[in-house]
Amino acid sequence: MSSTIGNSIKVTLFGQSHSKGIGVVIDGLPVGEEIDLEQVQSFLNRRAPGKSRYVTTRKERDIPSIISGLVNSKTCGAPLCAVFSNTDTKSEDYAQHLDIPRPSHADYPAHVKYQGFNDIRGGGHFSGRLTAPLCFAGAVCLQILKRKGIKIGAHLFSVGNETDTKFDPVAIDDALLDEIARKQFPVIDDAAGKRMMDVIESAMTDNDSIGGIIECCAIRLPIGLGEPIFDGMENRLATAIFGIPGVRGIEFGTGFAAAGMRGSQHNDAWRTDGDRIVTSTNHHGGIIGGLSTGMPIILRVAFKPTSSIGIQQRSVNLSENRECDLTIQGRHDPCIAVRAVPAVEAALAITLLDMICS
Amino acid sequence: MSSTIGNSIKVTLFGQSHSKGIGVVIDGLPVGEEIDLEQVQSFLNRRAPGKSRYVTTRKERDIPSIISGLVNSKTCGAPLCAVFSNTDTKSEDYAQHLDIPRPSHADYPAHVKYQGFNDIRGGGHFSGRLTAPLCFAGAVCLQILKRKGIKIGAHLFSVGNETDTKFDPVAIDDALLDEIARKQFPVIDDAAGKRMMDVIESAMTDNDSIGGIIECCAIRLPIGLGEPIFDGMENRLATAIFGIPGVRGIEFGTGFAAAGMRGSQHNDAWRTDGDRIVTSTNHHGGIIGGLSTGMPIILRVAFKPTSSIGIQQRSVNLSENRECDLTIQGRHDPCIAVRAVPAVEAALAITLLDMICS
Amino acid sequence: MSSTIGNSIKVTLFGQSHSKGIGVVIDGLPVGEEIDLEQVQSFLNRRAPGKSRYVTTRKERDIPSIISGLVNSKTCGAPLCAVFSNTDTKSEDYAQHLDIPRPSHADYPAHVKYQGFNDIRGGGHFSGRLTAPLCFAGAVCLQILKRKGIKIGAHLFSVGNETDTKFDPVAIDDALLDEIARKQFPVIDDAAGKRMMDVIESAMTDNDSIGGIIECCAIRLPIGLGEPIFDGMENRLATAIFGIPGVRGIEFGTGFAAAGMRGSQHNDAWRTDGDRIVTSTNHHGGIIGGLSTGMPIILRVAFKPTSSIGIQQRSVNLSENRECDLTIQGRHDPCIAVRAVPAVEAALAITLLDMICS
Amino acid sequence: MSSTIGNSIKVTLFGQSHSKGIGVVIDGLPVGEEIDLEQVQSFLNRRAPGKSRYVTTRKERDIPSIISGLVNSKTCGAPLCAVFSNTDTKSEDYAQHLDIPRPSHADYPAHVKYQGFNDIRGGGHFSGRLTAPLCFAGAVCLQILKRKGIKIGAHLFSVGNETDTKFDPVAIDDALLDEIARKQFPVIDDAAGKRMMDVIESAMTDNDSIGGIIECCAIRLPIGLGEPIFDGMENRLATAIFGIPGVRGIEFGTGFAAAGMRGSQHNDAWRTDGDRIVTSTNHHGGIIGGLSTGMPIILRVAFKPTSSIGIQQRSVNLSENRECDLTIQGRHDPCIAVRAVPAVEAALAITLLDMICS
Repeated sequence: MSSTIGNSIKVTLFGQSHSKGIGVVIDGLPVGEEIDLEQVQSFLNRRAPGKSRYVTTRKERDIPSIISGLVNSKTCGAPLCAVFSNTDTKSEDYAQHLDIPRPSHADYPAHVKYQGFNDIRGGGHFSGRLTAPLCFAGAVCLQILKRKGIKIGAHLFSVGNETDTKFDPVAIDDALLDEIARKQFPVIDDAAGKRMMDVIESAMTDNDSIGGIIECCAIRLPIGLGEPIFDGMENRLATAIFGIPGVRGIEFGTGFAAAGMRGSQHNDAWRTDGDRIVTSTNHHGGIIGGLSTGMPIILRVAFKPTSSIGIQQRSVNLSENRECDLTIQGRHDPCIAVRAVPAVEAALAITLLDMICS
Repeated sequence: MSSTIGNSIKVTLFGQSHSKGIGVVIDGLPVGEEIDLEQVQSFLNRRAPGKSRYVTTRKERDIPSIISGLVNSKTCGAPLCAVFSNTDTKSEDYAQHLDIPRPSHADYPAHVKYQGFNDIRGGGHFSGRLTAPLCFAGAVCLQILKRKGIKIGAHLFSVGNETDTKFDPVAIDDALLDEIARKQFPVIDDAAGKRMMDVIESAMTDNDSIGGIIECCAIRLPIGLGEPIFDGMENRLATAIFGIPGVRGIEFGTGFAAAGMRGSQHNDAWRTDGDRIVTSTNHHGGIIGGLSTGMPIILRVAFKPTSSIGIQQRSVNLSENRECDLTIQGRHDPCIAVRAVPAVEAALAITLLDMICS
Repeated sequence: MSSTIGNSIKVTLFGQSHSKGIGVVIDGLPVGEEIDLEQVQSFLNRRAPGKSRYVTTRKERDIPSIISGLVNSKTCGAPLCAVFSNTDTKSEDYAQHLDIPRPSHADYPAHVKYQGFNDIRGGGHFSGRLTAPLCFAGAVCLQILKRKGIKIGAHLFSVGNETDTKFDPVAIDDALLDEIARKQFPVIDDAAGKRMMDVIESAMTDNDSIGGIIECCAIRLPIGLGEPIFDGMENRLATAIFGIPGVRGIEFGTGFAAAGMRGSQHNDAWRTDGDRIVTSTNHHGGIIGGLSTGMPIILRVAFKPTSSIGIQQRSVNLSENRECDLTIQGRHDPCIAVRAVPAVEAALAITLLDMICS
Repeated sequence: MSSTIGNSIKVTLFGQSHSKGIGVVIDGLPVGEEIDLEQVQSFLNRRAPGKSRYVTTRKERDIPSIISGLVNSKTCGAPLCAVFSNTDTKSEDYAQHLDIPRPSHADYPAHVKYQGFNDIRGGGHFSGRLTAPLCFAGAVCLQILKRKGIKIGAHLFSVGNETDTKFDPVAIDDALLDEIARKQFPVIDDAAGKRMMDVIESAMTDNDSIGGIIECCAIRLPIGLGEPIFDGMENRLATAIFGIPGVRGIEFGTGFAAAGMRGSQHNDAWRTDGDRIVTSTNHHGGIIGGLSTGMPIILRVAFKPTSSIGIQQRSVNLSENRECDLTIQGRHDPCIAVRAVPAVEAALAITLLDMICS
């Protein structure tokens, strides 16, 4: 179903951009796990708007209220529900009418699908605001994964045509992941980050937006996680990742570049590493045949440029069935990929914990 | 679960490369749909091995036996089960022991996951042979979709660094799709096809393999198919597509290239087309916010080079825990992307019919 | 998963008896349906405690707060979330320790399952309090079903050995269902109701409790709803009904009594009724082979006596591993079947709407 | 979905009474489990027709062909598929037309649901013949459960008004379960069995049929299996049991009789038994709040009398929309409950193994 994901751990998102609140129910978490809500808040702050000039200046109160599921800060087996209030929204009963669908937003297909009854205020249930409860669930799962020795990290790999250094797929440094997570602008190479910021700055100057790519990794996974065919790690991770607004592609390991390679280049030789069996290279990105190999999981996610731009665009006035101009007002992220970094980590964390607990 | 996909239409694959048979159960098909088994066979023949020098020369009898689900060639509401015999496999009771895992195959993680009990003959349940029943299910769904006016087609977009023409995302020609489906080598531009064949030939000469990309489309979908967040068209399609062995990435519309674009370039303006609302361009690939827009669905799928190559590789002798050389014998596709073209169409067809019937 | 039910309409319950709140997320409701919250409240009041001497005198504020999913009181396609505050609960951080499990409560198996981390305050997630959000979801579904011409009603069929009149399975009167719903004590025959109240009174006098049976019906269902085998109406309805605490059995139509009958007595002859095909009798309770026949759905649900009684009982002190006496304090329903009447209607409504919308 | 059940172990049934074959796919079985096919066959023989005068004299070849999933007789992680041929069915292409629906069969609602395209030969997918693959799956699961120390058994508790002795809910004897399984007529008390046979004989003499009740148990389950609310043991078991044709009711422990009891009678006191905590009585039937308590699981299932009887009945000629007489020809079980005993055990086994493996 549209708003629920997971098998043994089920995560259900609810809320619209302008409803009374938004939130999440997490069912099936392992019991007795202490959840440090300050750490959760720190994670949420990484996606919070308003923290730099490269993200929207809107202020949202992203402090979750825990409705259920914790006893003395520990998971108790009952579903964990958290709600975020949408404090700055207007009265619920104002008239709503979709006149002119915004280009590259879901306005028009949603209008058709929901026969005009969908909540159009701020994108409704399609809003990027729903990544707040997603990040909440991710932050909870990350704490549990960490106790199992598993770590997840991500960085902004590219903005426009400016690229960061890639993760070393064979040897990812724990300390590096921590360092990136603390950065205002989450890149490995700060010089590359500076160039990316310039690209964003330039787009902002033109009332325009820009796309980007996020690279994400998970390390120290057990071997053999996942299932063949339709329930493999790639299938499951892709399902979660495409739940983040604006994603247009996903690749694992060497990804699309593998299509240009020969088998002798792409194959990763098995080798011994003490008692362990590992691969010398990691083109496979930690997953073969849907199963984890124990090598770092590596994936990259492409984000389109923010659809809301200040430049005048063409659209259609639906009630009059005629083409017209449209200029979108308001404060928007010039590059959604920037704030999406923790959302990608969250989607990965939720899925991996679910697979581990199955 | 690993071998089942779908909500209203559930497709369950079974079988191993060397079990008595492989097959599929399709539950939830709309009733009264006439299934032309000759057309199904024609579709299956498109993935059949041995039809050209660019695919494996192994002979497999890919003629399905219909066990249930049809009455007078029409779907009857009961699950449709088809079984393919694995006629050329050996006795079931020979000893099996995994000594040396093949690089970039699931041998090793499966060995760990299944504690050595998995069927290692021919890759077992991880074998590309399972795309035969997948294609059967796809062929059935394609016939039903066709009656609803929906058409699906795919071509080999690249092999190595040689690329075909892309589909025109705004105006895909029905006749072109038919034409590609009839070709021995499924490309739009035969000159590009010739260059791709040369690339494959060259890899074969070197006992090597080569990767490739498939581009797939679906036209005349209704508007508003799909769901927000986790059950969108991208999530659902990715789940199905990653069920095909060897897939390393998927992108929709402009895909990864969108990450290098500005919003003003990537946004697709809405315009009128008689009574219909369409977009002037189709960077969004027919899907926004998980919902179909009525524009052609466009996606590209990256396949890694065939993992089985004739060149000597390094691996590990598991029982002795020491590194060793390995040379894989046997006939293998030099480029799995070639025969995967109908499999990608099948995965798309199964998913779209499921979404339409929900 | 434990707290979610449904296919096309997914209902997820959350909360514990003493958490900050309890609630429900309903995903997949048809759009544009006006939800009259006053009617919802009226329905909730039917299960509210404290309204008569035959139910617990505890006061709970059962006024739901709508977090999301409605725009101008109409369903908008996004999940509908409602939260009830648990206003009279104590601080979250008091020490909890299960010393002595209450007989016939889930205390002990939950203690083992959750390794002592489950919320033991008031039964936690196992509490009958969770029927409040269940009834909320049911009340919403009932309004939508009503617009489709479908009506659901239930009465207390027995308490102890005192029984009410049964529904006439062939001809259920709409007005009768409305009348029962308005009654303080929901029976058909008020004289029987008086005898039942006396049975409850007598149990209360002895600090004891008493069991009961609820009979429920649904009328004007379309023919052919449901699926064969595992997804039939009985399977689906049983899954929902056993979600209500205290249920020990369910039967459809003539139910267990059918086991004592001959085919010639139990078979329901088909007959014409104008354009319609109906049955002369309704031993089948509106369901054959998992499918609705268009005749009234009839089912009965057995509730055990309330497990919390004021009489001294034997149990075990877990920390000392020795048997001991236990006397349960507090106000409890002497007969949970009384307040469960709307919960059974709700479970039926949720399931039927889900099946209709599939 | 209609023909699939289970979470971690998914069982999918396929086939119609007169299709080429019927069968089952079992996905998710634990690996490395040796399956003794002779024991499976012995179990299947318990439901086979023709073995006594109290069941149908039709001959069916119930010898399954294993298509996949076993390597050297051991489960290998891939789906286990078994197919039974329907050897005695006629050509597939004969005309089919439903003129007169049989009373208490699904003929009419299925005709409406499937718009006349359903397979009406022998009841199609609704046929009791589908319990053959169900029993196959059950037999496989029983072998695995047995290795985990868990045993399941059932007996015919009643036929008409003649009843067998009940299981002692507190102390079920292993040897008793084995003994019943070996009996031609599966009862505890053979004198009661004789009376039941007389009841069946009498019904047969009158060309009539008779209903019955099966009592089933499972012993040595771990404590805490199951989930609260919608995924409890009762919900799950009821879903499976109602998948057997002819079931009209299910009750756990003391069941419907609990509705006539006081709490002080029904509550089961906890007591110590060495290191274990058990209950002195077992009115709860081994399940409280959806969770197993470690006490024997006890449930009873009511079967209606066989709907196919030789006595003339009233029905409707659909094409002429007029009432008419109908006399059903052919050999039918006079009491479906007799052969359903292993089917109930199978449904229980499949569900319990699934819950244990989750």
